[in-house]
Amino acid sequence: MRIDLNSDLGESFGPWAMGDDASMLGLVTSANIACGGHAGDPDTMYDTLVLAREQGVCVGAHPGYADREGFGRRVIPMQPEQVSRLIAAQVGALCAMAQFAGTRVQYVKPHGALANLAADDMQVARAIVNAVSRLQPRLAILAISGTHLELVARDAGVPVYSEIFADRAYLPNGRLMPRNQPGAVLHDPEFAVQRLLGFIQTGNMPVIGGTPIALQAHSICVHGDNPEAVAMASMIRQRLMAEGVELKAFA
Amino acid sequence: MRIDLNSDLGESFGPWAMGDDASMLGLVTSANIACGGHAGDPDTMYDTLVLAREQGVCVGAHPGYADREGFGRRVIPMQPEQVSRLIAAQVGALCAMAQFAGTRVQYVKPHGALANLAADDMQVARAIVNAVSRLQPRLAILAISGTHLELVARDAGVPVYSEIFADRAYLPNGRLMPRNQPGAVLHDPEFAVQRLLGFIQTGNMPVIGGTPIALQAHSICVHGDNPEAVAMASMIRQRLMAEGVELKAFA
Amino acid sequence: MRIDLNSDLGESFGPWAMGDDASMLGLVTSANIACGGHAGDPDTMYDTLVLAREQGVCVGAHPGYADREGFGRRVIPMQPEQVSRLIAAQVGALCAMAQFAGTRVQYVKPHGALANLAADDMQVARAIVNAVSRLQPRLAILAISGTHLELVARDAGVPVYSEIFADRAYLPNGRLMPRNQPGAVLHDPEFAVQRLLGFIQTGNMPVIGGTPIALQAHSICVHGDNPEAVAMASMIRQRLMAEGVELKAFA
Amino acid sequence: MRIDLNSDLGESFGPWAMGDDASMLGLVTSANIACGGHAGDPDTMYDTLVLAREQGVCVGAHPGYADREGFGRRVIPMQPEQVSRLIAAQVGALCAMAQFAGTRVQYVKPHGALANLAADDMQVARAIVNAVSRLQPRLAILAISGTHLELVARDAGVPVYSEIFADRAYLPNGRLMPRNQPGAVLHDPEFAVQRLLGFIQTGNMPVIGGTPIALQAHSICVHGDNPEAVAMASMIRQRLMAEGVELKAFA
Repeated sequence: MRIDLNSDLGESFGPWAMGDDASMLGLVTSANIACGGHAGDPDTMYDTLVLAREQGVCVGAHPGYADREGFGRRVIPMQPEQVSRLIAAQVGALCAMAQFAGTRVQYVKPHGALANLAADDMQVARAIVNAVSRLQPRLAILAISGTHLELVARDAGVPVYSEIFADRAYLPNGRLMPRNQPGAVLHDPEFAVQRLLGFIQTGNMPVIGGTPIALQAHSICVHGDNPEAVAMASMIRQRLMAEGVELKAFA
Repeated sequence: MRIDLNSDLGESFGPWAMGDDASMLGLVTSANIACGGHAGDPDTMYDTLVLAREQGVCVGAHPGYADREGFGRRVIPMQPEQVSRLIAAQVGALCAMAQFAGTRVQYVKPHGALANLAADDMQVARAIVNAVSRLQPRLAILAISGTHLELVARDAGVPVYSEIFADRAYLPNGRLMPRNQPGAVLHDPEFAVQRLLGFIQTGNMPVIGGTPIALQAHSICVHGDNPEAVAMASMIRQRLMAEGVELKAFA
Repeated sequence: MRIDLNSDLGESFGPWAMGDDASMLGLVTSANIACGGHAGDPDTMYDTLVLAREQGVCVGAHPGYADREGFGRRVIPMQPEQVSRLIAAQVGALCAMAQFAGTRVQYVKPHGALANLAADDMQVARAIVNAVSRLQPRLAILAISGTHLELVARDAGVPVYSEIFADRAYLPNGRLMPRNQPGAVLHDPEFAVQRLLGFIQTGNMPVIGGTPIALQAHSICVHGDNPEAVAMASMIRQRLMAEGVELKAFA
Repeated sequence: MRIDLNSDLGESFGPWAMGDDASMLGLVTSANIACGGHAGDPDTMYDTLVLAREQGVCVGAHPGYADREGFGRRVIPMQPEQVSRLIAAQVGALCAMAQFAGTRVQYVKPHGALANLAADDMQVARAIVNAVSRLQPRLAILAISGTHLELVARDAGVPVYSEIFADRAYLPNGRLMPRNQPGAVLHDPEFAVQRLLGFIQTGNMPVIGGTPIALQAHSICVHGDNPEAVAMASMIRQRLMAEGVELKAFA
């Protein structure tokens, strides 16, 4: 058994730090790096890319709505073709920065409200896949497991990988419980790890208010902006390895 | 005799239009397209790139200080390595968008205060050349003729081309007269064309308060945000062609 | 018969001009001035306020979603209490600038998507009224005629005035036809004036796909960012005066 | 002996927190609150104002260059009249928010690069004083002790108070050592407190590379974004009170 461990990193902005990227990059196998839209700036992108390269961590682009105040967690009404262009500009910025930093972007994982929208909205999912497929050969998509984005990417022949969340509660329909609802974010590493180990053994993910659902997963996401992020990623890493699970980048 | 005619385009932002890009793209041979820093946004970049492709116009990236309110015309204090990252992120965004739009970025021309600083500041010139040289093989630089940026690029083995300005007054040291001084911007197309024809015949550019100076030029810049931009570009095009000068992209 | 003529002005931003404010300020009796949210910046606010003062035009604050790229025409998801704070900050900025420019803000008119949302969403309407009522004694609200914002303001004892639109099509429910639908914006001054004169005589406003509806109006809005804005405002002004209607600020 | 203890607060932005405002507001007597320029947003302004009101802390506006990425610590080239308008807009936003939050702005303290510029540049100092004097009767200025801003405000009849810095090194000319130089920021609370107590006894402030200089002070500034901010403010408070110094807002 082998799986990837990913985290959203590079989400500082100017004078404002977010998360402990240096520690997280010692724990994860893939880093989704913000592209200057919902978070990040040229210096943050560069620094995070260099750290990822030094730690041998696989790099993905993490584009989101260009809404810093809302951290990309609010749906900004856009036409599908505008979404494609947003993705192209942000992924392009990170790809070039990666080249400048001596590494390479391997995949794209949409952020926040855009990812949640692409889970169910075919037009938005297509807009994202359309942009990614035209930017760089073999550029993959990392999608929330069981979503339209996953299906659309597969249909389009774009390499696609699925992720589950270590620190987010699930709804019976397989979607993430919205952040503004109590219990949406798991803060107890032990509970999160137990849920994860159960999932890895059974392929079924517990949900709030329903029976566990079957999900596929090439990767596990641990959020980097959780105060418990480092503790959680560290415990997940140890316990999975203790169970004989190999942690390795999917890309 | 053969020369390129370039213009700064794609400088609209959101609801705000600037210049008449569609008309200008029917007149110039190279388009310097804003990258979302001093101007531009994903939609504007895309639309301008598509128009350029349709008109067969050569495309360059036009990065500048990320200062929309100041339109990239104010020096924002930055470390040289920050300038490199700014260039990498902006040029990368446009390169990806060009790919998405079915065309390709051939060169980089710094904008406004950054270009003026790179004319004399070796560290800034090196920072720009450093970024460009590591992004894409054969990506060229379009520099103001007679500047440090030109020299640094040449020394670094980066393809470099020189431009002169059709609509800006020159100082005796070869620098552009700052925009806040009267007479800095030429508004009379006939006067500008006459000065240009004189330069093409002699290789010498008239300056304010001094004797004409020798400059080399692969390209002529006509600003797109001048109210007279279309009239000036149109007259330059006609008169140069009437004199037997071939207008062709340098890249 | 007496009515006010208002227009959304001060919507330039940095290097980007919008509309012909100087001409419009010679025609309207009230100016809704952008507050740096959807448009405007300190210089634009100041310049517009000075022009308004010089022309004797009554000044209102025109706050909107802090979304320049979308020009405040996209709904940005916010909690009602966040809307109150947005209003307070933007109106406060304009009030202080008015004082600095030697004039005074008399009313608040929400902009774009925020105004449309406040037309039907009681919580948003209350959030706006709540902010306005606590900022300055006698600060009025200019609301789209027949909306919840109008009712909520009246109930709260905040001075409220109603506006109709000279250049926008109406739906049978009294709401404005969304801008992304064909025919939403009227471009023919003659047609707009005829519709307006009919309304003034009958109190009934024609709608698309229904019978005219009764509306009350203390003010007529002419958009300043229409290419036909000056022509339309000029014709409205002349024809209303020719019909014996007095044009005068409501505040 | 009586003195004020102030700190720069409300410098979070959207999802990004800065400093521990709640703790600091239990220690200081005056809070300089960011106005949405270099930092802050409507929610942060409101929350900080409410906390200040609840703790009985005197409130000042802390306007700065509208440069979030540079946190207002870079000089953005502006005309003096543009500085006045920047100040008017930002201070106005905070004044209105204070009213909405049930408190009142008592003074203005310029931030970062703008404050340093106003220390020596008469035109910038005049631009700031000009704006403040026209906004609200009796609105005071909190200036770095011994600067042109202090002199200009006094000459203009604007109430002005002087501050010294608990956590910044001084140069022989009385200016703060620039932040990019080693030793510019004091991190050892014990050292800072000793220096402060010495100043309070003698009126002389030690400088780097020179003999102590005489300074006047109505207030002591402790930066809120220092990791040691709370520890330093807490120790300063205790030790000053132990020495019989009364801590009280100047305004």
